[in-house]
Amino acid sequence: MTNDVPPEVSPEQRAREDELVERVLASFDATSDARLKQIVRSLVTHLHAFVRDVRLTEQEWKQGIDFLTAVGHITDERRQEFILLSDTLGVSMQTIAINNQAYANATEATVFGPFFVDDAPHVELGGDIAAGAAGQPCWVEGTVRDTDGNPVPGARIEVWEADEDGFYDVQYDDDRTAGRGHLFSGEDGNFHFWAITPTPYPIPHDGPVGAMLAATGRSPMRASHLHFMVTADGLRTLVTHIFVRGDELLDRDSVFGVKDSLVTDFAEQRAGTPTPDGRDLDGRSWSRVRFDIVLAPAPD
Amino acid sequence: MTNDVPPEVSPEQRAREDELVERVLASFDATSDARLKQIVRSLVTHLHAFVRDVRLTEQEWKQGIDFLTAVGHITDERRQEFILLSDTLGVSMQTIAINNQAYANATEATVFGPFFVDDAPHVELGGDIAAGAAGQPCWVEGTVRDTDGNPVPGARIEVWEADEDGFYDVQYDDDRTAGRGHLFSGEDGNFHFWAITPTPYPIPHDGPVGAMLAATGRSPMRASHLHFMVTADGLRTLVTHIFVRGDELLDRDSVFGVKDSLVTDFAEQRAGTPTPDGRDLDGRSWSRVRFDIVLAPAPD
Repeated sequence: MTNDVPPEVSPEQRAREDELVERVLASFDATSDARLKQIVRSLVTHLHAFVRDVRLTEQEWKQGIDFLTAVGHITDERRQEFILLSDTLGVSMQTIAINNQAYANATEATVFGPFFVDDAPHVELGGDIAAGAAGQPCWVEGTVRDTDGNPVPGARIEVWEADEDGFYDVQYDDDRTAGRGHLFSGEDGNFHFWAITPTPYPIPHDGPVGAMLAATGRSPMRASHLHFMVTADGLRTLVTHIFVRGDELLDRDSVFGVKDSLVTDFAEQRAGTPTPDGRDLDGRSWSRVRFDIVLAPAPD
Repeated sequence: MTNDVPPEVSPEQRAREDELVERVLASFDATSDARLKQIVRSLVTHLHAFVRDVRLTEQEWKQGIDFLTAVGHITDERRQEFILLSDTLGVSMQTIAINNQAYANATEATVFGPFFVDDAPHVELGGDIAAGAAGQPCWVEGTVRDTDGNPVPGARIEVWEADEDGFYDVQYDDDRTAGRGHLFSGEDGNFHFWAITPTPYPIPHDGPVGAMLAATGRSPMRASHLHFMVTADGLRTLVTHIFVRGDELLDRDSVFGVKDSLVTDFAEQRAGTPTPDGRDLDGRSWSRVRFDIVLAPAPD
């Protein structure tokens, strides 16, 4: 059992605290679901170890209750502050690290984040997921393959991103959908679509998580990125981002999502540079990026 | 650092997970408040140790987010589900154990619970805190002393309790106050008042905490008790209960609040037995209990 009690705590006091932990653990003896029992026992063990380690005061306990209450109260259908909290404490990324272990050359996973929505519109190959989201046009292309190098046709590719002002559509005042969609890889495993060049943005920081970041001297900024979730039969679902090489936030992403292998070249294209599909960009500059995706086999 | 990673995890994977923990801890390096820094570092360490220990799946992580969200959404001014959660995981009682260490013959503390309210009415010595709460009348008397045996006059004694149906007034549909009040010990440190005999009741279990208890085979019942909070200048505030000797729930209180020293004799008095203050109980039976309170010195 974890035991981080400071050395100055008397043996009698330590014994009293140990006894309480044992009593709480024993209260779960009748749990019929073995996995649930394992989880609650571990949770109790580590929670008590934390409280005993820092010798949490009653006032601090109350602040903790108030903090969690505020996190709960700001959370609604469009804002998930508990996910933000998990993200900013690295718990989301740790869960992803545990469940997406390195497998051969498979593309690495990163945080899901709170901004995915089901039912994003279907976009044909070559279509534009921006759908009016403000930002510089960005051509995205790549191939989906398995770890043996075989193309994966018909993989479902969900993409979502913030606009150049740092907002996802779910943060808009109206209900329009922009900066998200799904498409399917072609027979050759290839995909290509228009999006917008990712730019840095802060996670929502006007709530309790933002207050926690401010109190601890942390920035709410996320490194620029484009979200992907890729699913295909018989292969492990990949939730990831691509990041923009050169972004100065790469080493201090507020949710610990950056992995070296996910940093990609977004090549700037001057205004007037012909586009791959002949799209007329009205004299605007654009960028292009290649992201080849390798999916691991599905877990047993 | 806590490290409970199961032995089957590869050294490479372990290193990746360690590295993430270090990165998260380092993100708090700029925290100016040393105590806050200590708390967040310990919290991160133990949270990650929990996630790594049980190898939390992404689905389980999502269930955790949903659970916390439900706890947040059921919490309002009259219901505090986070306190219930802390109570039922023994975290409240551990915090109390840490902050109210045994001191000579001082009365032991126990959980505060979610049902205290500020501004409970003042009751004169000998008054009735029931104020209409249903239940058998109970005469409560005792003396407040310090650990040297000196009487403590003018100690503020807050008392609160559930009615015989198991409900506190804040759980009633109307706004009336019943089963709570505060009084002051007299010049000799003595106090006495009427209340109702405590009866067992379940903690509110129609929410997520109730679902957790049901899933783990635990009962929501609390052993019968009467709450006290006693404050006096220069002395440590005491938050405690008295429990009813003979209650079959004493060894499985849902919030781990029972301590042997707090189990007291509630002496049943047959109908017609004269009351200490001559109160006419209209032919009802009643009970009486003596609770002598010893307050530790205030911490430095």
